Amino acid sequence: MAILLVADLPADEHDLWLRCLREAMPGETIVADRSLADAAAIDVAVVAKPPPGSLTGLPNLRFIQSLWAGVDRLLQDHSIDPAVPLARMVDPAMNIAMAETAQWAVLGLHRRFFDYQAQQREARWLQHDQLRADEVQVAVLGQGQMGSTVADRLRALGYAVEGWSRRSGMPALAGLLARSDIVINLMPLTGETHHFFNRDRFAQMKRRSALVNLGRGGHVADGDLLQALADGQLSRAVLDVFHVEPLASDHAFWAHPHITVLPHIAAWTDARSASAAVASNVARLRAGLAPEHLVDRSRGY
Amino acid sequence: MAILLVADLPADEHDLWLRCLREAMPGETIVADRSLADAAAIDVAVVAKPPPGSLTGLPNLRFIQSLWAGVDRLLQDHSIDPAVPLARMVDPAMNIAMAETAQWAVLGLHRRFFDYQAQQREARWLQHDQLRADEVQVAVLGQGQMGSTVADRLRALGYAVEGWSRRSGMPALAGLLARSDIVINLMPLTGETHHFFNRDRFAQMKRRSALVNLGRGGHVADGDLLQALADGQLSRAVLDVFHVEPLASDHAFWAHPHITVLPHIAAWTDARSASAAVASNVARLRAGLAPEHLVDRSRGY
Repeated sequence: MAILLVADLPADEHDLWLRCLREAMPGETIVADRSLADAAAIDVAVVAKPPPGSLTGLPNLRFIQSLWAGVDRLLQDHSIDPAVPLARMVDPAMNIAMAETAQWAVLGLHRRFFDYQAQQREARWLQHDQLRADEVQVAVLGQGQMGSTVADRLRALGYAVEGWSRRSGMPALAGLLARSDIVINLMPLTGETHHFFNRDRFAQMKRRSALVNLGRGGHVADGDLLQALADGQLSRAVLDVFHVEPLASDHAFWAHPHITVLPHIAAWTDARSASAAVASNVARLRAGLAPEHLVDRSRGY
Repeated sequence: MAILLVADLPADEHDLWLRCLREAMPGETIVADRSLADAAAIDVAVVAKPPPGSLTGLPNLRFIQSLWAGVDRLLQDHSIDPAVPLARMVDPAMNIAMAETAQWAVLGLHRRFFDYQAQQREARWLQHDQLRADEVQVAVLGQGQMGSTVADRLRALGYAVEGWSRRSGMPALAGLLARSDIVINLMPLTGETHHFFNRDRFAQMKRRSALVNLGRGGHVADGDLLQALADGQLSRAVLDVFHVEPLASDHAFWAHPHITVLPHIAAWTDARSASAAVASNVARLRAGLAPEHLVDRSRGY
């Protein structure tokens, strides 16, 4: 049997993945070019942004491992057989990287470092009051592995953190949003969470609070966000993800004084630790066990 | 006996201190106006930026408590009797605030958030490689209460942290600077550490490393820093303190693309917790015990 890597990545990244996967699974045949293996021999596909159709014509495919945590695009690819089990990546190094980004954003909002950097551009010396971390209420939406790691690591900095997921229920969300200074989005993108952050949601949030979107661009209604910032309902947004990436150079977000644009770098999968996670799942498959972190297609994540 | 508060601060801050000190020491007479007390009755002075001469004519003064951690200006005030014991402020809340600033700066350097913010101003979508925290070597210069808290809290984020103080010796410093990606200054300002960061020191640092100055402006030779950045020897500086504050609006630091200017806000003394520290020292004095955190005038801190 053989493993097919389908990763639509820059050449150096692609090669890094192939090398790390081979090092993690020395007993497996791993190919990145379908012509180098008999299609019938390929039983596992390891994928990162696979072009639509790239997994067709593999009669014995029985497992797909995503190298990314988010699988929303894979689930929208109707050329992929929904009967084949699909696992998302759970990489401890990626969870930690996500927590670092959240910590940086929360520290910047709490201690007003974003404001001080704006003041620097005007050569303006102005000191603001300093709150203690425990006086800052942070809501973490999404309580998967990433959301939990982010919440734990923000608590370790002393912040008042509450987690929420859709299982917690919408009434609990309204109360949490009304009292939170900072809302961090780490939910999966599904039909139910598309444009979750819209005009009505922003209206539920605390006046002058901030949004940190580390989930997907599709979670946010861009026009409603711009309006909430213009109204002063939100004080700032830190955005790592966008409807279309790269963000178009003429998009209003780039030049907005109260939006911080990050080019989808909040957390990258670490090829070294993620390859170990892939090897573990492949070993489970070979031993007749179910792989870990399988996607529930009915939930969408 | 009475306690005199001499704090050259904005009225609202001054009043906050007076209120917090009175709440922390309900049994003491605390005045902020010398005319309200008999000069001979004043045995304790609590000071923040006292104007030169403001502690003269107090025949029974036997203890001075600084509300700030840095006492370099007090030691240069020759109108203050050097025989009167002087304590610097050690405020746990201030140590934590300092650690937050250091964490924000280190996360920003490690994860290149400063660069991403510069890219945003050019609407430029460009992703950089992502290192793990343990791959980033951080040196913390100064191992007092603040330096220790900063080092501990950076270690908690996973960074490779080494502390150094002048007691560690200059040979150890050379090796540490040569391998450190980020150098954080938290030393006291003394005759020996004035312009500590000069051309020779920058030459000892690792190529493309960064300086985070949370100590005093006098630690840095400004012209040498600008040259080290121009040469590419240093990649960035994050500065909270300056030779003259507020920083002059035409100073080269404001507009420099690789200097982050903060208006001396890295850590403010928290009036609530600091007043408790003052009360503890006054209680020790009244009980015939030596106050804590006394300054050694021969060392200069």
